[in-house]
Amino acid sequence: MVIPSLIERKRDGSSLAPGTWAAIVRAYAAGEVPDYQMAALLMAVVWRGLTPAELSELTAAMLASGDRLRFDGWSVPRVDKHSTGGVGDKTSLLLAPMVACCGAAVPMMSGRGLGHTGGTLDKLESIPGFSTQLALPAAIAQVRRLGCALFGQTPEIAPVDRRLYALRDVTGTVPSVPLIAASIMSKKLAEGLDALVLDVKTGSGSFVPDEEQALELARTMIGLGEAHGVRTVALLTAMDRPLGRACGNALEMEECLLALQGEGPPDLMEVTAALGVEMLMVAGVERDPAVARDRLQKTITSGSALRKLAEVIEAQGGNPAVVDDPALLPQAPHSAVYTTSSAGVVAAVHPRPIGHGIIAMGGGRTRVEGAVDPSVGFVITARPGDRVTVGQPLATIYARDAAGLEAGAEALAEAIEVGSRAPAPRALVSHRVTAAGVETLRP
Amino acid sequence: MVIPSLIERKRDGSSLAPGTWAAIVRAYAAGEVPDYQMAALLMAVVWRGLTPAELSELTAAMLASGDRLRFDGWSVPRVDKHSTGGVGDKTSLLLAPMVACCGAAVPMMSGRGLGHTGGTLDKLESIPGFSTQLALPAAIAQVRRLGCALFGQTPEIAPVDRRLYALRDVTGTVPSVPLIAASIMSKKLAEGLDALVLDVKTGSGSFVPDEEQALELARTMIGLGEAHGVRTVALLTAMDRPLGRACGNALEMEECLLALQGEGPPDLMEVTAALGVEMLMVAGVERDPAVARDRLQKTITSGSALRKLAEVIEAQGGNPAVVDDPALLPQAPHSAVYTTSSAGVVAAVHPRPIGHGIIAMGGGRTRVEGAVDPSVGFVITARPGDRVTVGQPLATIYARDAAGLEAGAEALAEAIEVGSRAPAPRALVSHRVTAAGVETLRP
Repeated sequence: MVIPSLIERKRDGSSLAPGTWAAIVRAYAAGEVPDYQMAALLMAVVWRGLTPAELSELTAAMLASGDRLRFDGWSVPRVDKHSTGGVGDKTSLLLAPMVACCGAAVPMMSGRGLGHTGGTLDKLESIPGFSTQLALPAAIAQVRRLGCALFGQTPEIAPVDRRLYALRDVTGTVPSVPLIAASIMSKKLAEGLDALVLDVKTGSGSFVPDEEQALELARTMIGLGEAHGVRTVALLTAMDRPLGRACGNALEMEECLLALQGEGPPDLMEVTAALGVEMLMVAGVERDPAVARDRLQKTITSGSALRKLAEVIEAQGGNPAVVDDPALLPQAPHSAVYTTSSAGVVAAVHPRPIGHGIIAMGGGRTRVEGAVDPSVGFVITARPGDRVTVGQPLATIYARDAAGLEAGAEALAEAIEVGSRAPAPRALVSHRVTAAGVETLRP
Repeated sequence: MVIPSLIERKRDGSSLAPGTWAAIVRAYAAGEVPDYQMAALLMAVVWRGLTPAELSELTAAMLASGDRLRFDGWSVPRVDKHSTGGVGDKTSLLLAPMVACCGAAVPMMSGRGLGHTGGTLDKLESIPGFSTQLALPAAIAQVRRLGCALFGQTPEIAPVDRRLYALRDVTGTVPSVPLIAASIMSKKLAEGLDALVLDVKTGSGSFVPDEEQALELARTMIGLGEAHGVRTVALLTAMDRPLGRACGNALEMEECLLALQGEGPPDLMEVTAALGVEMLMVAGVERDPAVARDRLQKTITSGSALRKLAEVIEAQGGNPAVVDDPALLPQAPHSAVYTTSSAGVVAAVHPRPIGHGIIAMGGGRTRVEGAVDPSVGFVITARPGDRVTVGQPLATIYARDAAGLEAGAEALAEAIEVGSRAPAPRALVSHRVTAAGVETLRP
């Protein structure tokens, strides 16, 4: 196998012969293909795409590069939710304890920040002491005991995907439907699931801004899931603005704790409920969507979801007192209120500059081995459609130094548009996709 | 500078802001940009190209990353010839001693094999003991003493280009007009030249198969050269079949030694003469092309070019006896005659599969740090247009083992097409390009 000539084939728009992707994955796993060749190949895939046969082979090879979670003889249905990534998207942190409280188990193996978006693991690690590195047997045991575990890919799970995910993050090779589908499904198929709900983000802040492409991604992943015996449903949700108010690891964790106390922002709670209903239904623990929604809401009003999260935090080495005292989360030493210099209507809050701003402030990665500062970020109160007057606060910036505050203000100036009118934002939940087809939802 | 977002900009088809390429080159030189990010960026450049302003800045930054050859106060004109790369192209090894014998100095800093093509340094290193690693002062002293030195980029010369050149070779990012132009000119502008002749290859075996693109490359490089005070001329020459018969490092060296004894293949000698005439004229040592051609031919018939090459070999640590006894070059332990199984006309001898075949046999690189076996390769006697009968020998394969012979035979089967008729091959030398414009040549 001569790697440069395979890169050239893909670069020139040809598909690779059957067996080639499996061989590339094996060679990369064995350390025989250096990252610089893989990075060039990935960029060629972003450019040229993959055929369905190439994608299926790549996904299966990534799955086969590692082990799976096994729950042999355990009757509790397992369901997970996966998001294609956005800015301010913290629904995973809410859904895992909420759904676990409703009788389905959630073996939630998550990822780190990718491109301009945040990652569930980075958010969890803002909790003092919290470890996302569970050994595979420990993760299985915790899911059986608490109904839920929140952890990173273990070394045994799709190790090739883990390396590719980190490499794509820092080489501009994230936005590719086949690479996204292969990465997500190679991990999700390793979780020992009965069912899976996909949250496919659309709009300018998602990796697949185009709605048709997002539907294609949903159908592609549903096909891969169902082919492996996992019932799979997808919702298309809005990422033309951040979800909720907090953007940045510790700030998002804090928003989650408030949300589980009944004080979450309405948009965040609406998307969380929609995804949670699908999880309970596809897992088979509830048949009526209205009843499912009620049961989920009760996990908040009763405090059971917050207690479940505290149990999970404690089980994973974190300080459970954080659920009652969010001030235990890392606090940025500097903050500043960001105000508008013009009056009018908030026309847009673009997610991408916000994500890039967090990276510039030290809260995201620019290299595979980079560390993040969990404390930095934004709390953005301005929403598209809000009327604003000169000098009105739109957001608060949290930074580690004066340069960070400046970078944050620059990012917000790019992100928040104030004009004379606001175009209608996307529907929060616009489509429901199953193996049977696409259903358009209107709120 | 956030490298991933610069990669994303280029990936999405935007140009980078003034100063960005200079900053990227400085950061890469300082080890702050890893090869995997550079590889992805290079693939994005192959995809999206560079604007003239981006190219000019990149080239200047690559030149400025290192030192230059300085010949202060020396009146002998300096001229070099550079080829964009092909299969079987060994004109550099002939022209350096021939032109040095005619009174122009040739500080010839060459490269290694790139993609499917061979490299002058790899060919020279097939000579026992020959060192292409001259220190900069030693190279300057040898050019002053012998009129010629054949060496690799020293660490002081365009160090960033050296790393990029090696990286592109193994990441499928060679065929890009701006990357080729920047690489060539950042080195050539460091040679302390008065004049430069560019051999721009066209046809399927070149990096720029399209004739219009090849002319664009020629004009681009001439512009960069003239802007730096180096008189620059380009010839477009044919690379739709190998040049000469030998393909492979030691085999090509042997063909050169025979050529300097008057026994070179006609196509190789024709291209060599055309380039040599341009070198003598642009260097200002001869005004009449016919006289220039005669002078070059006399360096062969008189044996002076062969003696000059022997002096150079001795000065650079090689065994000068090789010029009289090519059997001192590395000999492959296995050889086999390749015959045709069908009768007809040789329709094509494709250079690319030949180059890839040499790599597969161990005679070229698949990774930056790879070593090459100088002995392997082909001597291909079949030329497009030849009538052949069943069982007629078309080539000889030289390999280090039985697997190599098999890989070689497979490559030849792909390379040599026998059919009922042969399309006319490209003119060996088709265009002459100067700052004044393009002249179409017909033989």
